[in-house]
Amino acid sequence: MKVLITGANGFVGLPLTRLAASRCEVVALVSPRANTAHLDAIAPKVTLVHGDLTDDETIERLARTRPDACIHAAWYTNASDYLDSPRNVDSLTATLRLALRLGAAGCRRFVGVGTCLEYDTAGAVPLTESSPLEPGRLYSACKVGAWHALRQVGRLTNMAVAWARLFYLYGPREDSRRFVPSVVGALLEGREAAVSPGGQVRDFLYVEDAAAALWAVASSSVQGAVNVGSGEPVTVAHIARTLGMIVDRQRLVKLGALPYRPGDPMSICADVRRLTEECAWKPQSSLEAGLRHTVAWWREQSTQPLRAGNK
Amino acid sequence: MKVLITGANGFVGLPLTRLAASRCEVVALVSPRANTAHLDAIAPKVTLVHGDLTDDETIERLARTRPDACIHAAWYTNASDYLDSPRNVDSLTATLRLALRLGAAGCRRFVGVGTCLEYDTAGAVPLTESSPLEPGRLYSACKVGAWHALRQVGRLTNMAVAWARLFYLYGPREDSRRFVPSVVGALLEGREAAVSPGGQVRDFLYVEDAAAALWAVASSSVQGAVNVGSGEPVTVAHIARTLGMIVDRQRLVKLGALPYRPGDPMSICADVRRLTEECAWKPQSSLEAGLRHTVAWWREQSTQPLRAGNK
Repeated sequence: MKVLITGANGFVGLPLTRLAASRCEVVALVSPRANTAHLDAIAPKVTLVHGDLTDDETIERLARTRPDACIHAAWYTNASDYLDSPRNVDSLTATLRLALRLGAAGCRRFVGVGTCLEYDTAGAVPLTESSPLEPGRLYSACKVGAWHALRQVGRLTNMAVAWARLFYLYGPREDSRRFVPSVVGALLEGREAAVSPGGQVRDFLYVEDAAAALWAVASSSVQGAVNVGSGEPVTVAHIARTLGMIVDRQRLVKLGALPYRPGDPMSICADVRRLTEECAWKPQSSLEAGLRHTVAWWREQSTQPLRAGNK
Repeated sequence: MKVLITGANGFVGLPLTRLAASRCEVVALVSPRANTAHLDAIAPKVTLVHGDLTDDETIERLARTRPDACIHAAWYTNASDYLDSPRNVDSLTATLRLALRLGAAGCRRFVGVGTCLEYDTAGAVPLTESSPLEPGRLYSACKVGAWHALRQVGRLTNMAVAWARLFYLYGPREDSRRFVPSVVGALLEGREAAVSPGGQVRDFLYVEDAAAALWAVASSSVQGAVNVGSGEPVTVAHIARTLGMIVDRQRLVKLGALPYRPGDPMSICADVRRLTEECAWKPQSSLEAGLRHTVAWWREQSTQPLRAGNK
C-alpha cells in the first residue's frame, strides 16, 4: 500500500503524513522550497517529492510513483489572501489534472479536501453533507467546482473519490495571523487580545484529530462528501476565554474590542455522523486539551525562536 | 460599445456574432484553424482573432482589445466525447482565466454559457434557475464549477456576470451526429430514421432564437443564472414525427427502433420566465418553423456538397 499525500508540509498535511508513515509507504509532495525538517525526521518511511502541482511535470513524476491512494491536501492557502486569490483557480485546475492523471495511472482511492465554506452558511445548522452549497468566496467556489468535477473523474477512472470538508481547525503550526494563534500570541506576550463580541458559533477541531479523520476517510470505503469537524458547537467567545484561562491572563481577553466582520457567518456547525459512523473516527483531544497543546507549542516557539524548522 | 464573442464560429456562436455585429463593434474569437467563410461575410464589422483560450497569450490578446462585454460561448464540444472528455477541465480553466483577465482589463459584463445538464434532471420540472444542481457528467460538472467561480470573479472584478443555461438547441450547422441532424439526414437520403420510443420530454429551441436570447441576456442587467429554452415541453417522438411530416417521409421514422439510452433523463423542461420577463426576450420561430428552416438548410447542403464554408 502506497499513499501519496500532497501538501505534506502543510498545517494538516504534516500530522497526516506522520500518521500515514506509521501505517504504510508514503510519497509526500511538498512545495519546491519547503522547509522539510519535520518530514526529514520521519524519513526513511517517506519519499519526499519537491514540486508544484501547477506544473504538469510534477504531476507526471507523482503518477510514476504509482500510488494506490492519494490524499490531496495541497491548495493555495496563504492566510492573507486565500479566500479571494486568483490562485484558487490554479489550485482547482491542478486538483483535477492530478486526479485525472492518477486515475489513469491506476490509483484507486482519492480523498480531496474541501471546506465548510462550500455550504450555504446562512442556512440551517448543523450542516450535513447534503446541505445546500452556496460558496461565497472564490476559494470555496473553486472547492465546490473541484468536488463536482472530481466525482466525475472518479466515475470515469474507476477511482473511489471522497471529499473531506474541513471545518475550523486549530493546533501547532497554524498561520500566526489566524484567530487562535493571534489570541495566544498576544496573551503569551502580555498584550491585550482584542476580539469580536465572540457570539459566532463554530466547530473547532484539533489539527491532529483532523489528520486522523482524513486518514479514517481514506481508509474507509466511503465515497462522496464527508464533514470533518468535532460536531460540538462552541462560541468564539468560549475559545477566547478558555485560552485566557489556560495562559492565566483572562483579563487580557477583550471580547467586543473588535466589531464582527461583515459577512462573517454567525453559526457554522458540522453534523459528523458520516465521519464517526461510516469512517469509525473519534477525536482524541477535548477542546480544552487541544488548546492546551496548542498554547504549549506556541510557548515553546517563543522560547526557542531560532530553532530550525519550527514553522 | 465593443463585445467580445468567444466560440464565434460555433453552432450558437455564429448566429450570435451575426446578430451582435448588426448592433455594435464585435471582436470574434475563433479556433486557430477555423473556416471563417461565414464570418468573413459579415466583416468589416467583426475583428477576427484566431486563437486557443487554453493559451494565456490568446487571453492576453483578447484583453488588449478592451471589450466592454464578453459573451463566452467557447467550450470543448466535440459531439463524440464532450460529455466526459478531460478537455472539459481545460475549458473550465480557460473560462476562469479569461474572466479574471477581462475583469481586470475593465470589461463590465460577462455572459457565460451553461447547460440544463447542470440541474438534477431527476428532480421536479419545469427547471427554474434555483432548482438543485446535480451534474452527472464531467461536462456539466465543469460548467457548474465555472458558474460558481465566475460569480466570485464578477464580485471581485466589479463585472456583472450572467450564466445562460442552454437547453436543447437545433438548427443549421448542428453537428451531424446529434439527434435532429441524424434524423433529417436519414430522411433526406430516403433511409429509415431509427429512434428511441421518443417518450423523453425535452425543451427544444431554434438556434437563432438561442443566439437572440444570449444577446438579450447580455443587453439586460440580469445577473446570475438564466435558463435559455423555449419553455414549451415536447416529446422526442413529436420532433421525429414533425420532421417526417416536413420531409414528407413519415413512414421512414421508426420510433422504438432503438432503446432508450441508459441514464437519459425522461423529462427536461425549462422555466423561462427570467429570460422572457427580465431580459425581454421572445422566440421568433415556432418549433415547426424552426424545423422547416433546419430541413431546408440540410437540403441545401446535400445539393451543394462542395460549397466552401458550409459547415
